[in-house]
Amino acid sequence: MTGTSDFEQYLLARRAAIDTALEAALPTPPTCPPRIAETTRYSVFAGGKRLRPILTLAAADAVVEAGHAAPVADGVTLAMPAACAIELIHTYSLVHDDLPSMDDDDLRRGRPTAHVVYGEGLAILSGDALLTQAFVVLAQPPPDAPPGFGRRQLRAITILAQAAGAAGMVGGQVLDLAATSNGGNGPGPDQLTVDATLRDIHERKTGALIRAAAVTGAILAGGNETAVDGVDRYAAHLGLAFQIVDDILDVEGSATDLGKTAGKDAATGKPTYPAVHGLDRSRVLAAEAVQAARAALADAGLGGRLTQIADWALTRSH
Amino acid sequence: MTGTSDFEQYLLARRAAIDTALEAALPTPPTCPPRIAETTRYSVFAGGKRLRPILTLAAADAVVEAGHAAPVADGVTLAMPAACAIELIHTYSLVHDDLPSMDDDDLRRGRPTAHVVYGEGLAILSGDALLTQAFVVLAQPPPDAPPGFGRRQLRAITILAQAAGAAGMVGGQVLDLAATSNGGNGPGPDQLTVDATLRDIHERKTGALIRAAAVTGAILAGGNETAVDGVDRYAAHLGLAFQIVDDILDVEGSATDLGKTAGKDAATGKPTYPAVHGLDRSRVLAAEAVQAARAALADAGLGGRLTQIADWALTRSH
Repeated sequence: MTGTSDFEQYLLARRAAIDTALEAALPTPPTCPPRIAETTRYSVFAGGKRLRPILTLAAADAVVEAGHAAPVADGVTLAMPAACAIELIHTYSLVHDDLPSMDDDDLRRGRPTAHVVYGEGLAILSGDALLTQAFVVLAQPPPDAPPGFGRRQLRAITILAQAAGAAGMVGGQVLDLAATSNGGNGPGPDQLTVDATLRDIHERKTGALIRAAAVTGAILAGGNETAVDGVDRYAAHLGLAFQIVDDILDVEGSATDLGKTAGKDAATGKPTYPAVHGLDRSRVLAAEAVQAARAALADAGLGGRLTQIADWALTRSH
Repeated sequence: MTGTSDFEQYLLARRAAIDTALEAALPTPPTCPPRIAETTRYSVFAGGKRLRPILTLAAADAVVEAGHAAPVADGVTLAMPAACAIELIHTYSLVHDDLPSMDDDDLRRGRPTAHVVYGEGLAILSGDALLTQAFVVLAQPPPDAPPGFGRRQLRAITILAQAAGAAGMVGGQVLDLAATSNGGNGPGPDQLTVDATLRDIHERKTGALIRAAAVTGAILAGGNETAVDGVDRYAAHLGLAFQIVDDILDVEGSATDLGKTAGKDAATGKPTYPAVHGLDRSRVLAAEAVQAARAALADAGLGGRLTQIADWALTRSH
């Protein structure tokens, strides 16, 4: 119980630090019109778990603690801009995915979605602003940056933009839209094709950004290539575990617990792990993914909070 | 006539070089799903004038020619990624602005807009992909980059993201949406307020990206601060001239010439220079803006194609 409690305290403290940094990272009047400041804040401060930015900071800590990075005063300070950028991009993707022409969700984390409150036009623009602001944040020179830090920033920008764009998150949503509109039949004669599509969608739509979150943290903290590769493999498995558990929770959860319309995935014919593999097999796959994530860490001589985050991915209830 | 012809040849050659670079800059299967490769290309290769990327390359040329930059093999090569990034962002903004929940335009440059062809969901995602790809392109290390080029890239990324985001283009579209939905009464008792709103919308919505286009060209080519400042002031005036002429052409043009629904601005109550100031006064304001652009160039010891582009802004018929 002490371990759990310590980890929960850690999550709370990191969420608070990230929220403070996010507030400072968002555009503010009179630099921008008040309306866009309001709409972006509405979606960013909507009770998110901050999984991705916590992962960024944990990866930065891990490479420094394991001696895989040149000693720096504070890996977290160097990685915080990436943590914020990733949460801004994650939030933009939720705002656009919720639109009537996409997943058409009116409720997210128990609150009306942005287009319900502000209208479709402003919701689209709010997402656009969040995505763009991520790159403003990532390109800033941090105070006391070590020599050569600009190269790390450019590498982080490339990785994040590739993860968010046509090859990653946007591409995944394109495949998801197509799969959903095709009816998503669940397992059948071409189970292999369905499974491959499911993996492809998830790797692009959610996996790519989770990997980018962890990897940019490791890079900005100065991690060497062994550490960066280890963090990347860890995060690929972790992202899969998170997605499978999300799919399971959608089937099992109530609208109250999830703050969104439960069972919606099945109702819209969206391809999910429970729909393709069944609930029991999905739980096994999630546990295997977490084991693989832990093994990738161990191989690279990393651990600490990253291990706890992997365990949390499996046991969380929301 | 020889001068005009030479300038037109120059524009054609630059457009061809930019189109080749844009094709290479866009995401391609199997890295991305084929559908998103198709939708992004549909909008990028839709007969645009390529004003902004031409301006980027012309600014790079100008600072090198005037000796305001350290000698480099080819300022255009160094600036081409920014030229492409700016055209990708310009295209994304058109795709999103044309959406039914924004300006609701079915026709652009004589062709059906992206949401008409691919549906709203894919059009939104296509815009998202174009915006994100711009930062992939800008963050790449070019071959034979001079020492310290990474710092120029980070500066260009910051400028471009700020110009495109909540403080710039997105903010301008937010104000534009609000002004249009308020009915846009044209000149009246509070003409000063209307004029200030009109300027604010244009400076953010179109001016910011035109300034970023020119300034990033000057920065990436290695221009000193005098050159960068001169290019910035030039582009601020040029952007105003372009916008006023666009507004005039909307009133005067036919749907065939413009490739979009002429007179649409007035029909939707969108604030424009002719609506606020009348056609004759708008022509004077455009000519004054071009004069101011030329003066800013002369002050900084710059000229060449940038001067011709300013003159073209005034005399163009589409």
